Amino acid sequence: MGKALIIGCGGVASVAIHKCVQNSDAFEEICIASRTVSKCDALKEKLQGGKCKITTAQVDANSVEQLVALIKRVQPDVVLNLALPYQDLTIMDACLECKVSYVDTANYEPEDTAKFEYKWQWAYREKFEKAGITALLGSGFDPGVTGVFSAYALKHHFDEINYIDILDCNAGDHGYPFATNFNPEINIREVSAKGSYWEDGKWVETEPMEIKRVYNFPEVGPKDMYLLHHEELESLGINIPGIKRIRFFMTFGESYLRHLKCLENVGMTSIEPIEFEGKKIIPLQFLKAVLPDPASLGPRTVGKTNIGCIFRGKKDGKDKTYYLYNVCDHQECYKEVGSQAVSYTTGVPAMIGAMLVMNGTWKKPGVYNIEEFDPDPFMEALNKWGLPWQESFNPELVD
Amino acid sequence: MGKALIIGCGGVASVAIHKCVQNSDAFEEICIASRTVSKCDALKEKLQGGKCKITTAQVDANSVEQLVALIKRVQPDVVLNLALPYQDLTIMDACLECKVSYVDTANYEPEDTAKFEYKWQWAYREKFEKAGITALLGSGFDPGVTGVFSAYALKHHFDEINYIDILDCNAGDHGYPFATNFNPEINIREVSAKGSYWEDGKWVETEPMEIKRVYNFPEVGPKDMYLLHHEELESLGINIPGIKRIRFFMTFGESYLRHLKCLENVGMTSIEPIEFEGKKIIPLQFLKAVLPDPASLGPRTVGKTNIGCIFRGKKDGKDKTYYLYNVCDHQECYKEVGSQAVSYTTGVPAMIGAMLVMNGTWKKPGVYNIEEFDPDPFMEALNKWGLPWQESFNPELVD
Repeated sequence: MGKALIIGCGGVASVAIHKCVQNSDAFEEICIASRTVSKCDALKEKLQGGKCKITTAQVDANSVEQLVALIKRVQPDVVLNLALPYQDLTIMDACLECKVSYVDTANYEPEDTAKFEYKWQWAYREKFEKAGITALLGSGFDPGVTGVFSAYALKHHFDEINYIDILDCNAGDHGYPFATNFNPEINIREVSAKGSYWEDGKWVETEPMEIKRVYNFPEVGPKDMYLLHHEELESLGINIPGIKRIRFFMTFGESYLRHLKCLENVGMTSIEPIEFEGKKIIPLQFLKAVLPDPASLGPRTVGKTNIGCIFRGKKDGKDKTYYLYNVCDHQECYKEVGSQAVSYTTGVPAMIGAMLVMNGTWKKPGVYNIEEFDPDPFMEALNKWGLPWQESFNPELVD
Repeated sequence: MGKALIIGCGGVASVAIHKCVQNSDAFEEICIASRTVSKCDALKEKLQGGKCKITTAQVDANSVEQLVALIKRVQPDVVLNLALPYQDLTIMDACLECKVSYVDTANYEPEDTAKFEYKWQWAYREKFEKAGITALLGSGFDPGVTGVFSAYALKHHFDEINYIDILDCNAGDHGYPFATNFNPEINIREVSAKGSYWEDGKWVETEPMEIKRVYNFPEVGPKDMYLLHHEELESLGINIPGIKRIRFFMTFGESYLRHLKCLENVGMTSIEPIEFEGKKIIPLQFLKAVLPDPASLGPRTVGKTNIGCIFRGKKDGKDKTYYLYNVCDHQECYKEVGSQAVSYTTGVPAMIGAMLVMNGTWKKPGVYNIEEFDPDPFMEALNKWGLPWQESFNPELVD
C-alpha cells in the first residue's frame, strides 16, 4: 500500500496509470502531474471512482524547484518518471532533495545530442546511496523487461551467459503506407543512426541498418530485422558475468524503410530550417504534421508484438540455449487501456517497477539498472499484469 | 524583318528570346513583357548590343486592358505568348482587339481544373478569320514539332497515316535522387492523371501509368515509358486523314516514380491545406520549397532528350513505317543559352513559329494548329536553329 507520483501524461504514462488503478492494492493513491494539467484531469475523470485515489497537478519537469515543491506537497513513496528523457536529471535532483525513490523507463539524454549513455545517471550512485534512496533505471520493456529476462535466465538457467540477442518485433499493421508509432523525429533518428553491439568488452560500430537478419518470430512469422544500438546493451554488457557478445535487433518493414529513404532523399527529414512564405520551417516538423498522429494509430492497429531475448551460455559445463519472450496483441491492448501494444509493453513494466520499489521488494540505496535486482517478483508480476512470458529451449538462432 | 512582343520571361521564354536575338535578320526588334519586369531587364542586359533591338515592359497577362494598351504602344507584327496557359484567352482577346497575330506553345486550361482541351481556343476561329489575323496554336515541341513532323510525314512519305506514336524521352541526369524539371505541381499532376489515347474516332481512357513500354531510343538506349494523355492527340486525331490510333508516351525513371509514390502516400503531394503552427500550408507547396529549384538543374544536367514520332500508313498501296526524331544534349543547350534541353526544345520552336507567322510564310486568317500549315519551312528552320531532325525507315515499333 503506498502513494506514487507519476510525472508525464503521454501514451506510456496513460497505460501505466491504467495499470496502477487496476492494481489499487499496491497503489492506494496516485498523483498525475504534467505540464498540461488538462490531460491529467481527463485521465482522472475517466479512471476515478475505484479504490485508487487520483489527484492531479501541473509541473514543469525542467524545474527542480517546482518538482521539489510538488514532491513535498504530495509526499509520495516513489516518483515514477514518464516525462521526456531530457528531464531525468532534474527529477533525480528533486528526488534526492526530498529523499524519495525514483523509477524511470529511458536513460537521460542531453536535448541537443542523441547520446544514449548511462554515464550521467550513473554519476548519481553515491548521492543516492548516501541519501538512502533507490533509483531504478530503465523499467520499460527494452530496456526493462529485457534486463529482467537476463537476470532471470542467469539465476535459473545458466552458470554463465555468453551471448544475448535482444529481438524487438512489432508486426502491427495500421493500414497506412507510412506512419510512425511514436514521435517521428525520434523514430527517424533511431533508424538513421549508426548501429553498434558489445563484443569482447568493447563496442563494435556498424553503418546505419548495415546488419539485416530475417527471424521467424513465434506467433508472428518471419520478419526482417536490423541491428541497432540500444541503451540496455551498455548496462547488460557490464552486469551479466561472462558475456562475450550482446546485440539488439528491431524489425522494420520494407515499405516503412522505402518511404523513409525517399523522404530523406528529398530533404523532408532534415532538421535544417528552410525559408517558406517568409517563415523558417523545419522540414521534419512539417512532415510530422502531415503524417498521421501516432495517438490515432491505436484503434486501427492490428497484429502482434514479440519482444524477447535469446541467451546462449553454459550450465553444468554444457552449452545451453534459452529464449524468453512476450507476445502482445495490439487490439487487445487497445480494448483494455485505449493504447496499442507499443505503449502497453512499456507502461506495464513501469507500473511494476514502481510497485516493487514502493513496497520495498526492491529497495537498496543507490542507482541501479533493472538486472541488478532479483528478477523473480518482477517475472511473476508480468504474468499477472498483462505481459505473460513464454520460454523455449530450442529456439531458432540469429547468425 | 519584324517586331515581336514576347509575353512571359520564364525558362522557355528565355530560350526563345536567346534565339530571336541570334535570328536578328527576322527579329529586328523584340519587346519582353512580364509581371516581373526585373526579369525582363536582366535578360535584356545580358543579350542587348547586337542587331536585335530589345525593350521591356511590365504587364499583367490576366488583364485584357493592360495587354491591349501594351500591344498598341509596342505595335508588334506578332505576339508570342509564353506566359501561363491560364492566360491564353486574355492574350487572344487583346490580339483580336488590336488585330495582331498570335502564337503560343500550350493550350488554354482553366486555372481550377486540369483540362487539356482545345475547345476554348477553337471557339475563336471565326473571330480571328473576320479580323484577318492568324492564331498559331501549340508551337513548342510537343505539341509543336510533333505536329510539324506529322504534316511533313503526310506530305512527303504517305498517302495516309494510320498510326502515330509520339515518344518523349528525357534521359537527362541531374544527380539528385528526386527533382522535377519544371513546376512540381504540374509535373505531379501529369503523372497522377488518367491516361488516354485516340482510337477509331474516340478517346480510350487508361488508369494513371497503366500502360508501360520499354523503348530503345536512338543515341539514348532503352528507357521505360508510360502512356499519358497529351494535348496534341486531340488536334492530330482530327487533322491527319486516315488516322486509326494515336498515342503519346513519356519516359520516367524508376527512382522518380518510386519517390513520387512515397510522397503521395505520406500526403506530401496533397493540395489540401493543413494547419501548421497557426498557419494554413499546402503540403505540395511546401514540398516544392524543399525540392531543388528546377532552374538550378540546368548546369548539372547531363545526357540527352529524344523526342519524335513513329508513323505507320500506306504509300502507293504499300505499308510503310517512318520515324522522325530530334536528339538534344542537355549540356550543349546549357552552354549555348543557359538552359537545359527541356526548355530548349520548347523555346526554339516557339521562335520559329513566331518567325513564320511574322514574316508571312504562315499566314491565313483564323485559328490553326501547327499541323495545318506547310511543314517544309519549319522543318528547314529546325535544322538551322538547333533542333536538327533525323529519320529512320526501319525503326523499332511500340506494341
